[in-house]
Order: sequence, then C-alpha cells, then structure tokens
Amino acid sequence: MSSPLQEEKVFKDPVHKYIYVQDQTIWDLINTKEFQRLRRIRQLGTCFLTFHGGEHSRFSHSLGVYEVTRKIISQFERNGYEDWPKGERLLCLCAALLHDVGHGPFSHSIEKTFGTHHEEWSCRIVLGDTEINRVLSQVSPTFPQQVAGVIAKTYHKEIVVSLVSSQLDADRMDYLLRDAYFTGVNYGTFDLERILRVMRPFQGHIVVKDSGMHAVEDYLMSRYQMYWQVYFHPVTRSAEIILHKIFQRAKQLFEEGYGFQFMLPPLLSLFHQKLTVQEYHLLDEAFMQTVLSQWSMESDSVLADLCARFLNRRLFKYVMLEKLDVQLIEKLREVMQQADWDPAFYLEIDFPSDLSYDVYRPGNHDEKLPILLMDQKGSLTEISRRSEIVRSISGIHMGKYHLYFPEELLQHPLGSLSTELCKLIGLEHG
Amino acid sequence: MSSPLQEEKVFKDPVHKYIYVQDQTIWDLINTKEFQRLRRIRQLGTCFLTFHGGEHSRFSHSLGVYEVTRKIISQFERNGYEDWPKGERLLCLCAALLHDVGHGPFSHSIEKTFGTHHEEWSCRIVLGDTEINRVLSQVSPTFPQQVAGVIAKTYHKEIVVSLVSSQLDADRMDYLLRDAYFTGVNYGTFDLERILRVMRPFQGHIVVKDSGMHAVEDYLMSRYQMYWQVYFHPVTRSAEIILHKIFQRAKQLFEEGYGFQFMLPPLLSLFHQKLTVQEYHLLDEAFMQTVLSQWSMESDSVLADLCARFLNRRLFKYVMLEKLDVQLIEKLREVMQQADWDPAFYLEIDFPSDLSYDVYRPGNHDEKLPILLMDQKGSLTEISRRSEIVRSISGIHMGKYHLYFPEELLQHPLGSLSTELCKLIGLEHG
Amino acid sequence: MSSPLQEEKVFKDPVHKYIYVQDQTIWDLINTKEFQRLRRIRQLGTCFLTFHGGEHSRFSHSLGVYEVTRKIISQFERNGYEDWPKGERLLCLCAALLHDVGHGPFSHSIEKTFGTHHEEWSCRIVLGDTEINRVLSQVSPTFPQQVAGVIAKTYHKEIVVSLVSSQLDADRMDYLLRDAYFTGVNYGTFDLERILRVMRPFQGHIVVKDSGMHAVEDYLMSRYQMYWQVYFHPVTRSAEIILHKIFQRAKQLFEEGYGFQFMLPPLLSLFHQKLTVQEYHLLDEAFMQTVLSQWSMESDSVLADLCARFLNRRLFKYVMLEKLDVQLIEKLREVMQQADWDPAFYLEIDFPSDLSYDVYRPGNHDEKLPILLMDQKGSLTEISRRSEIVRSISGIHMGKYHLYFPEELLQHPLGSLSTELCKLIGLEHG
Amino acid sequence: MSSPLQEEKVFKDPVHKYIYVQDQTIWDLINTKEFQRLRRIRQLGTCFLTFHGGEHSRFSHSLGVYEVTRKIISQFERNGYEDWPKGERLLCLCAALLHDVGHGPFSHSIEKTFGTHHEEWSCRIVLGDTEINRVLSQVSPTFPQQVAGVIAKTYHKEIVVSLVSSQLDADRMDYLLRDAYFTGVNYGTFDLERILRVMRPFQGHIVVKDSGMHAVEDYLMSRYQMYWQVYFHPVTRSAEIILHKIFQRAKQLFEEGYGFQFMLPPLLSLFHQKLTVQEYHLLDEAFMQTVLSQWSMESDSVLADLCARFLNRRLFKYVMLEKLDVQLIEKLREVMQQADWDPAFYLEIDFPSDLSYDVYRPGNHDEKLPILLMDQKGSLTEISRRSEIVRSISGIHMGKYHLYFPEELLQHPLGSLSTELCKLIGLEHG
Repeated sequence: MSSPLQEEKVFKDPVHKYIYVQDQTIWDLINTKEFQRLRRIRQLGTCFLTFHGGEHSRFSHSLGVYEVTRKIISQFERNGYEDWPKGERLLCLCAALLHDVGHGPFSHSIEKTFGTHHEEWSCRIVLGDTEINRVLSQVSPTFPQQVAGVIAKTYHKEIVVSLVSSQLDADRMDYLLRDAYFTGVNYGTFDLERILRVMRPFQGHIVVKDSGMHAVEDYLMSRYQMYWQVYFHPVTRSAEIILHKIFQRAKQLFEEGYGFQFMLPPLLSLFHQKLTVQEYHLLDEAFMQTVLSQWSMESDSVLADLCARFLNRRLFKYVMLEKLDVQLIEKLREVMQQADWDPAFYLEIDFPSDLSYDVYRPGNHDEKLPILLMDQKGSLTEISRRSEIVRSISGIHMGKYHLYFPEELLQHPLGSLSTELCKLIGLEHG
Repeated sequence: MSSPLQEEKVFKDPVHKYIYVQDQTIWDLINTKEFQRLRRIRQLGTCFLTFHGGEHSRFSHSLGVYEVTRKIISQFERNGYEDWPKGERLLCLCAALLHDVGHGPFSHSIEKTFGTHHEEWSCRIVLGDTEINRVLSQVSPTFPQQVAGVIAKTYHKEIVVSLVSSQLDADRMDYLLRDAYFTGVNYGTFDLERILRVMRPFQGHIVVKDSGMHAVEDYLMSRYQMYWQVYFHPVTRSAEIILHKIFQRAKQLFEEGYGFQFMLPPLLSLFHQKLTVQEYHLLDEAFMQTVLSQWSMESDSVLADLCARFLNRRLFKYVMLEKLDVQLIEKLREVMQQADWDPAFYLEIDFPSDLSYDVYRPGNHDEKLPILLMDQKGSLTEISRRSEIVRSISGIHMGKYHLYFPEELLQHPLGSLSTELCKLIGLEHG
Repeated sequence: MSSPLQEEKVFKDPVHKYIYVQDQTIWDLINTKEFQRLRRIRQLGTCFLTFHGGEHSRFSHSLGVYEVTRKIISQFERNGYEDWPKGERLLCLCAALLHDVGHGPFSHSIEKTFGTHHEEWSCRIVLGDTEINRVLSQVSPTFPQQVAGVIAKTYHKEIVVSLVSSQLDADRMDYLLRDAYFTGVNYGTFDLERILRVMRPFQGHIVVKDSGMHAVEDYLMSRYQMYWQVYFHPVTRSAEIILHKIFQRAKQLFEEGYGFQFMLPPLLSLFHQKLTVQEYHLLDEAFMQTVLSQWSMESDSVLADLCARFLNRRLFKYVMLEKLDVQLIEKLREVMQQADWDPAFYLEIDFPSDLSYDVYRPGNHDEKLPILLMDQKGSLTEISRRSEIVRSISGIHMGKYHLYFPEELLQHPLGSLSTELCKLIGLEHG
Repeated sequence: MSSPLQEEKVFKDPVHKYIYVQDQTIWDLINTKEFQRLRRIRQLGTCFLTFHGGEHSRFSHSLGVYEVTRKIISQFERNGYEDWPKGERLLCLCAALLHDVGHGPFSHSIEKTFGTHHEEWSCRIVLGDTEINRVLSQVSPTFPQQVAGVIAKTYHKEIVVSLVSSQLDADRMDYLLRDAYFTGVNYGTFDLERILRVMRPFQGHIVVKDSGMHAVEDYLMSRYQMYWQVYFHPVTRSAEIILHKIFQRAKQLFEEGYGFQFMLPPLLSLFHQKLTVQEYHLLDEAFMQTVLSQWSMESDSVLADLCARFLNRRLFKYVMLEKLDVQLIEKLREVMQQADWDPAFYLEIDFPSDLSYDVYRPGNHDEKLPILLMDQKGSLTEISRRSEIVRSISGIHMGKYHLYFPEELLQHPLGSLSTELCKLIGLEHG
C-alpha cells in the first residue's frame, strides 16, 4: 500500500511553477537510481544543436507528465465525477512518471540501428530486478504488472491508458509546453489550465466539453508548429543522420572484427544485442558522448570523422529536393564515389515523418485515441468533424525530401565534381 | 581583419529572445570545436540536483554574455557617446564570448582538488594551438593576446575589462537572468533593458546615470536572492562536497598506486597535473560523468560508494550548526570512526562563501570594479553611499556553518552512536 | 521640418517593454489634447464586461502601433534595403500614431446609429483646427494632407499605406498582442520579433521572406482565435446590442420631441448629426458613461432600463439558433409583445461578422492588401496558395445566429409565455 | 445560508490566470450594481498619466484579493490546520471581495478635500439599503455587520482581519502583482505561490514558516520598489496635486456662491458633505471626468485652466528641493504673485509619505499587523529581527521635498521673474 506523505514535497519547475508530490510511492520512485538516470538523457535528443536552450532532460519532462496527470485527476476528484474510477489514481500517477524511464541516449538513432525500443525497456525496468520494481511491489505484488500494462497500452481500462497516452495526453501537454519553454520558441504555448478544466471522464473515455473546442484547436496548432519548426528542423535531422551513420559504421566495423581502441562492456552487449537491465542503466548520454569523443580518435577514418563532426557540430549541409527519382540518387552516388566519399555514410535522403510526432489523426492510429467532444446532451463527436482547422491540420503532408551531404563536397578540389553536384541538386555554384 | 556578415545570423534564445551575430569573426569563433565543447559543460555545476531545470550549458550562457555586451556597445554607438573607444568593439565581443571557454566539468570541485583555474585555461585556449587562436589571429597577430588580456583583466583599458568583468558586467547580467529562467525561480529577474539604457562610458569607466539607481538596486537584490536561494542552496553544496570527496579519494588512491579498473589518458594527466590543451578538450562533463559511473564499480568501497551517491542523488544530509568549535569537530570524528565511516570522506563542515558569488562590494575586491552613479553634473558616487539597500546588502554575512554527513548515520545499528550524533548536532532522535 | 530629440524619450509599455520616441514631431503629437483624449476611449469597447482586464485605452494601442512601425522602419534602414523610400519615415510614424485618433466612445454602436465613421473623424482632426494639425503643419504645409491620405488609404505609395493598414500591418500586430496581454488570454501571442525580421520592402510592396511562412501562419492563427474567443464573444456582443438599442431609443425619443432631463450640447449635435471637431473632442467614453448613468434615471422606462442594464451588467441572455426563418422571428416578436416587452428594443438576432475583424482574405477586400511571400529568387506568391492552414482559415465561416433577449422572459409571470419561448428557441424549460 | 454553486464559475484574469467562484453568495455579490460600479474606478488613480498601462479598475483588483484569499484558505483547509477557524471562510471571502467597494473616483484628492473616507463608505454600502446588503443578509441577519467589522478591523478574530488587512495580506499581494502587470514594470513580481505555501494559521495569527523568509524579503523588496518607482512617481503626484487644487478651487467657488454652468445633484451633495449611499453610487470616475471636462469651459479661469491641464496632461513641472525653509516658500509665493499666478493653486510643496503605502513597519502601526516568522519549534519572531534587508527597508526614509509649479513660469514674459525662480530652486536658466 502507498500512504500519503506527512508533508507535501515540492519541486520548483519552470513550466508548472511547482510540482507537488503527495504520495510516499511517488517520492520513492523519484529517488530510485533508474529514475535519477533520466537526468542523463536529454529530452530532445540532438535538438540542442539547433536550439541551444533545448538541453533539458527526460527527468524534468517525466516529472511534468506526472504533474499534469495529477492535476487532471485532482480536478476529476474535486468535482466528484462519477465516471472516474477513483481506485486508479496511483496507477495513473506511477505510469505517468515512469512511461519514459526506458529511454536511452539518442533513442531514435540507436533504436533504428540496434532494434531496441524504449517502451519495451520501460516495461523491462518496471518488471525487472530494479529499485523501481521494489518500490512498486510494496503497493501490491501485481502493481508492477499493472504499471507496465498502462505503459504498454494493454491495461484493460482505456480511461487509464488514455490519460498517459492519447492524442490529448499528459505526455504531449507537458512536452509541448516544456520544449517551447526551453528552446525559447513561442509556438508551444496553449492554455493548459483551460484544457484541464474541460476534460471529463465519460463512460470509460476521457472527453472534452465542446465549449473547449477552440482551446483544443489551439493546442493542436501548437503541435503543428512545434512539429515543423522544432522537432523536424533540418539541422536537428542532420545531426540525427550523422549519429545514425556513426552507429551503422561502428556496427559494420564490429561485425568485420575491427579492433576498437575504446570499448566498454555495455557497448559490447549493445553490439551483440543482448543488453541486460543493469548494463542498460550504464548506457546514458554521458556514456554515449564519451564514446563518440573517444571514437573521434579511432584509426578508422570514417568513424573518427563522423564522431568529430557530431561533437564539433560540423553537420551535413542540406538542400530540399523538388523531385526524387532513382536516376538522381544513382548519379549522386557516382559523384560522391568519384570524390572519394563513401555514399553509404556521407549521403542521405530524408523524408520527415514520424508517427510519434504526427499532429493529429482522427482515427485510432498507433493506438493513440482521437479527441472526442461532448455536447451538453452527452453525445460525442470526433473533433475533426466539428473543426475545419483540425481537419486541415490532420490532412497536411508538408514533408519534403531533403538531401544531406558534407559541405566540403561543394568545394571539392576536382571542381568539375562540385559543379556536377550543384547541377544535380539545383544549387547555383560559385 | 574581421568583416561584417553579409546577412545577420540569429540564434533563438529563451532569455534574450534572439542573439544577433553580425561579424564573421564571432561566427567563426562560435563554430570552433573549443567553443562547441561548452555545450558539454553545465553552467550551474551540481545545481541541477536541486533545481531540475538548471541543466543549461556554458555554451548558452557564453552566447548570452556576448549578446548583452553587443547590446551595450550598440547603445553606446547609437548615441554617439564620445567616451566610448569605438575601435574596441570586436575585442569586447570576443572577450565576452570567450571568457568562460576554459571552464571544465564541475569546475569548483576539480579546481579545488587539482589546483587548475578556469580563467587561466581560457587564456591557454585563446593563446594555444587551437581553432579559436587561428580565428582570432586572422583579425591581427596580436589580437589573441589582447583577448587574453581582457579575460585576465590585465588589458590596459579599464572600460573594456569592466564590460566583461565588474560588479555590473555582461557576465552577471546574463547569468542571473538565465539561471533564474532555467531553474524557474522568480528571483533573478530585473529590468535589463533599463539598466542598459542608463549605462554610460565616462572617462574610461562604465558608469550609471543616477536616475537608474533603483534599477541597479533591483539587480543587486536579484543577486542577493539568487546567491542564497540558488547558488548556495545546501543541497547543491552537498553534491559539491561529495564530488570534492570523490576527487580527493581518487587522488589519494592514485598516489598510493591503486590500480584503477577504469582510467583514460586525460585523467592520468589530470592526476599528474600536466594536462595539455588537447587533453583538456576531452575533459568535458560527459567524460567526467562516465568516469563517475565506471568508478561506481571500482573495488575501493569509499570511491565506489561516493560515486554512486552522486549519480543516484543519495546526497549527504545537512544540519545547520549554531556554533562551531574544535571540540565538537573532534567528537564528531570520533563518533564517525566508531561507526566505521572515515570522517575524511564522510564528514564536512562547510561555510558558504565564495568571492565569485558575493552580492556586492563597494571596493575594488578581486579586481571587480564597484558601481558608480553619475549625477547630471557628471560627478561620480559609489552606489552604496547613496543607497541604504545596497549598503545593507553589501554588509550582510548570512552564512552559517553546515555539517554534512551520510543520513544512514542516524539509523546506525549501534543505536547509541546515532543518539550521540543527534545530541552533538542538536537533532531530536526518533 | 522635424528634428530629432536631444535625448530619446521612453514610455514603459507592458507589451513592447519600452516605446521609444526619437522625433520632436512625434513627441509633440503625443502631447496634443486630441491625442491625450484617446486615454478616455477604451480599445476594446464593451469587451471589459467579458474579460475584466480588457480596460486598456486607444492611447496605449496607438503608441504601440507607432512603436511597431518604428521597429519595422528601423530594421529596413539598418539593413539598407534599397526598395525602402527613406523619405517616408516620419509620414509613416505620424500616420501610425494618429490612425485611430478619430475613434469615439463605443464606436461600433454609435457609428451604427448616427452614421459617423472613425476614419473620417481621424482625417477631420488631422486637417481641422486642432493642436495636431498645428504640429503636423510645422513639418510642412502639405504634411497634414499627406498624413490624412495615408489614414484614408489614398496616399499614392502603397508601401506607406500598407505598413499602417494591410493584412499584416502594425495596427493588427499591436492589437493582437495588446488585447491578449490585457485580457489575459493566451491566444494572441506570436513571435513579433521574427515577423519583423522577415518583412521586406520590395518593389513598392511590403512582402515576407518565405522562410517566415510559419511565423505568419502563427500570427493568423492568433487572429483566428482572438476573433472567435474575444472579439466576437457573445457576452461582448450582448453589451454592444444593448448599447445600440439605447442609442436607437434615445434617437427615437429625440425625434419624437421627448424632454430629456439630462442633455448636453455635444449630445444634441450628435442627434442633429452636425458635430464639430470641438464638440467631438468632448464626446469621450467618460462623457458617454455619465450620459448612460443620468439616463438610467429618465422617465422613459425603456431608456432607463436599458441604461441600467448596461451599467450594472445585467446583459441580455443569448441562445444559438440552429436555423433562422421569418416565421420564427415573427413568432418571437408576438410572444414578446404579449409579454409586454417591445421587441424593437428587447430582441435581437445577431450574426457575428465584421470586415474589420476578418481573419484573413487572399484578395484586396476592403482595401486590405493580402500577404505576399517572396522566395529566394524574388518571385511573389500570395500566402494562402502556399499554406493549407491559411487556406482553411480564410475560408471559415463559423458565425452562428444568436438570439438575444432579457433573461426575465424565461421567468415571466405568464408561465405559458416562457414555455412557448423556450420551445421556439430550443431551450428546456424548468 | 450560502450554498455552493452547481458548477464553479471562472473569470479569466491576467494575474492569476483564472479566478474561481464556488459560492452562490460570492457570485451574487459580484453581480450587484455596487460591485459593478468598481469597473468605473481606476485602481491606481492618476498613475495612468505616468504609466499608460495602469488603467485597470478596482473591479479587477477586488476579484484578485478575493482569489488570493480563496487560495490561502483552500491551502489551510487542504492541510487541515487545526488553528484555522473553518466557519470563517465565507466571511473572509466576502470581506476580501468588498473591502474596496467604498472607493470613489480619485479617492486621495477627494478624501483630502471633502473629508470622506473610503473604508467608512465600504461599511455604509455593506450596511445600507443596497443590493450588497440584501445578498449578505441572506447568509444571516448579522452577516452584513460581521463583514463590515472585518473591513473596519474591529472584528473580534484577528486571524480573519489579518488575512484581508495586515502587512502580508491578500490586498497587498494582489495589488503589487496586478499593478506591476498592468504598468509593465518588473518590480512587483514575487513568488506568490511560495508565500501562500509558507503561510500558517497559528494561535489566532497568520504566521510564516521561517524557511520562507527569503520569499517574504522578496515580496517586501517589491513593495519598496513599487513604492518609489510607481506609487510615488513625481508625475503621478503632479496629477494628484492638480486634482486636489481643482477640488479646492471648486469648493472655494461654491462657498463664495459662484454660479457653476455645470452642476449635478451628487456634486452638490458632495459640496454640502451630505452624500447619500445612492448619490455616492453615481459618483464614479466617468462622472468626475465629465465634470472636469465641463468645468474646463467654466468662466472662472483658475478652475477652467486646472481642469484643462489635468485632462490634456499639461501637468505641473517639479524640482527636488535640497532644503526647505519658510523663507524660501515665502519668496516663491512672492515671485508667483508678481507673475500673476495665485500660489494657492499653482504652487505646492510635496513630501511623499502615505501610511497606506509604507514598505514595512515592524510594529502595529495603523492597525497593520507585522509579519511573524515561526520556527520549527513554534516560536515566533517579528521578521525584521531576523532579516537585515527588512530592517534596512523599514528604516528607509527616502522622501524628498518636491516643488510643483506650472512650467510656463520658466518662460515668463517678465524674464527677471523666471530668472529669480530658477535661482531659488537651483535650476539653471536658459
């Protein structure tokens, strides 16, 4: 069982002013070493290379998701809404706090190369031999399993899952506000307090009073703007691409039996794809940056060069491509090879699209529930049926193909190569 | 020579909205690997363990100091003040940008143990075989020397030095606002725009129009509040103390010939106190955290335990001591030894005081120039002679002795030890 | 001729931090009695009855429009854009400052009843025997005529007119930010600094660099949200409607020869529709509120009742009508008459739509120029052709018919009347 | 009895984000015509002539005081503090809401001339034949008397009085934040949420946990800054002085039997000092401004001139006097009389000091209770005994004598007069 703290604890937080902890279980979870590790994982991956303020950690975001969830539930309880299953409070709070605990350093790139998945790791940490598991087990023997269920979206009560994970969930509400605050952009601000006030538990769903439609529109516009201005900024993508190339190269070298000067056990296990929970714990962003720093001195020139590029922010240049065809790609590869750059590691064509960052989808895609408006008579409508703005946002596919490559190519000693490259990608050469 | 950029570059910044770069030299400096390394050093050291938002880097602060300096100079130029030496603009901007470039990870603790000094390192980087040196040398062969002179406060024009380093300098103005913004506390806010508007170059000094006295008072009150509420927060000190103990222990072990399982060249050079500029470059906060992480698995139990405490935020408990005498300390040591804790690594008596963080000093202490008010007739008065508030702030010595020790001591199996400890430090035992 | 001020003057402003005055002419204009009168006219008319913070005056808005214009021009001059006609600076600033100087109290209602028009009055004040005219004439004898031309949008240089009056003008940029700030809603915030940075003078137009498209989208979304959440809030409309009914009733009484207990010369002239500039000056919001206050004691019960309703905020109730037909209206009138309420003064069907508040229009409607994006090659595209969001906003017609009537009707002693009314408008009766 | 509202009502508020109304009685009070009248009285009197944003009304401040009080009580109730007398909640809320309901237009000047007092009027309105009285009487027949008691500070429970009226009361906490927000100055911001969290009911007092001392220091520094930068700004004083002169002149004329062209019943009663509650209701700021506007056309040139000065913001010039003696004043009067300006209406020597705006006083002055810190053992200390900052603030007497007079005097046709004046007051003549 969990008991209330004798005296409420608070954390000063720039986004929510204060974060209030009222339960011993929450307090104990925050103090586990697995949760403290989130201080060593940046929330926005490589985005700090575009927006220098975006250096905040998943630790602060996780506290924020917890706080938004706590506020929603506290509103439900204060108003005594009957459709709110009171017994689920602690479960929601724990799942909100822990849903990102499995994130590793630069998740996108590492997951893409090594096939790990952060949500799976969150569950492994909740269920494994960890301090977190011990704290949760004190609530009840089956409690860790329930928390993992909510994180994995398999828990049987949709209303619990949707608080933490839906198109209008505590996770997104916190990260939009937080990422906007730390990067300093204006786009992520919306009226959180008003949205919380129009949310209602209703027949197993979380719905929104229709008088709050404009506030939700505003929240979705924030998503739209953050999506294009921050999360998919081409400079951030450029850094992601370099990271991905680094891991691909390292994996290739490893498989070829290359003798790394710098290698540590968790890295070995990552290459062998058999990380334990204990090793995963060591694999934080400080570790990964140290690896990159050490590898920038490896004898393999591709690996060393890519690592130095990342650390010293000499990122790939990018151009937008109006069209994309096999011939063009083939030609580009040829030019690169002639210029002695391996296209496998120095050329990338990227199309920004990522389900975890879509603006809004009316259906149940990726298990993210849509937003339902409730009118005064209690009937529900999916929001894009009522709002032209939402309809237009959810239909937008603004992604463009971008080509990424080292800027040096444009000043290649073999001038003719640079000229040809410029012609291919529509740049004026000068 | 430096030339203006064809098109102004901007950085989005949460504190100043935008940071404007107008000179090729500044742009090139920002893109050096030595400056980019500042992204891997937190501005506030261990403070993020108290205020989770305080995770911002010295990179963003350095840009901020540059921007405040740029604004001041641009105001001077716009108003055509005759006492402003126009030719010094670029020198001021470069010194502002680079003054912190020599900061290492957790500077306070490492400097205390190994006798390094960040200002000295800033000069070594400016003058050594570095990308920064090459960029500066393009302005003129003696330019690196001038920049180093401003950083070392030996440059012959006081007005240039005092922009970057005085009691009302661009450095402090940025860090107060920035640290307040990222930690989320209210205390650091003051009216920067107004202060900039009342600053004047005057006979080789920077002075303040006396109509701006209240704005300066407000700025100094911010300093006072940030000093006690953030910079000297006992939790932050507790983490500092543990770090310091870690490095002391490691140094001791190293001197005793202990065989570290994890050791890398820059670390060795640090122990031997003969770091090169190239090695110093590798010694960032990611590196240091990886060291702590690896050392938490060393066989030396004191070293391993201290590292784990730091990483997992199991910091020392603290109590305020009303009085301090040799006898008390002696007794405390005895109790610790009986409890099998080595007092050299598990006990600290701390008195918060740090010249770099003093609120305000009327005189020329530590080469930080005092704040001068100028009346309409052009006569100057040191501010504390005019303002009772400033007088009272500059005289305040609020520091108290704090005792830091592991909380476990209070639940020692030998209950009588815990009881005695509690009695000594005035805690009720329960 | 105008000369620069010896020392820049500043106004503290909550929206722009400071407003900078650098020209003697601007300073003198602000100090005229006609400009000072704007302190006695609220910017948002009756909106303070919905959002109690919205009590700011047209004085502060006018200063804000001036400041935004000043910032735009100063950016143009700093960058030395050739397409900017430098000689027009002072004209733009004066027109920006004075464009609203002809606004009267509760403009919408009074203009509707008496056929006055604030833009026309602005011109009359600029050209008439006023302090403003005298200040402007000192610049040059034809200068007042030029200022009036810009305000009336007849000035021959489109670029000058469009700074003050287009779909992305200084007027709108200030009022969105200001109205959002004072009412406290989140919706009006957008990144002004960024928009200013992407504006360019180009071949006689003001255009926007296409890299700034998202920032403009964000600005238009702010318009959209402010439009529906603030400017057309039904409570604000309800107050407007009552005001309009008051003036209609008073006009009717006046025409019928009713003997007003309270009547003053400017009011008489208003009724006779032959106000002089001197009388118009007296007709501020304080005057109008005093009139309402005195009329609330008139013997005509309709006039007295309507005035008391406005002053004491006993506004009309409103319901949204799904459909609207002649029959329904006829029936409603009948019910009201049976209930002894004159439908001419106690019933209104309102459709929110107002050209001055439309979100965005791609064409040149109402002489408001559309927003043009400029790509790197200098070709122009109207923004809605590039942005789906803008396209969807500009097509939205969300207005609904609302019925306004006194709430007492629902508790009419003749219960059957209330019941019938409820049935007609689709309310449940209880 | 009062009952909770079925559904919480909210007001959007720029300072507190939202204001929550939960009781029918509070809702009904807000809707009375006496409370709505506060919309027509500016919170900061003449301050809008210095800070143009300071146009907010006592209506919004009164809601704010209510909201701060509600938050404090709700914290007390949530934590179940035993020393909080639960039954007093509604009484506190009503008194907080209504404490300023007796404020008239430009209270300071009118109270000074006619001897009225706003607190007394608040009580008369609460106890008289008013809508407010009827709403309060529904709670219980003695409830109006209790509310008046709290406002008059005679209620028998100190804890209730001190919430609304002490050195750290809801009134001051709201107005500092609100006045800072609307004027746009930075000085009034402090951490309200933290202060609320460290307030405790204790043995009949409201005390502050000593860990919150710095937050209270910050609040008092805000008071100090707002006091000198906003409330006693010499431009604001200049406008006050003119207003005061206007009423003095009008009173003198009235007593001399002058035939006013513009006169209305409430004004007559004001002159006769026998205003009824009903007449007082009509006497709002709109009324007073209309009076000034009409009087600017009176035949008495002094009255007409002073009124025009106020309306058109041609305020008196001011200079600070280093010393003040009878001789100087006598000489000044002489010069004025020679210049044909009546010194009784065109000369004022002002010393800023006003008990209602003092920064902090350790004792029980003016019935404002001091701030008590409570340590962990429950013993109380008055804050200035612990805080050097507070000690220094409470001892500061920074007021200076200022001389106010028409600027025209400095350009008097009889040049010798201007010269002599300049000499007397230490101005250079040019």
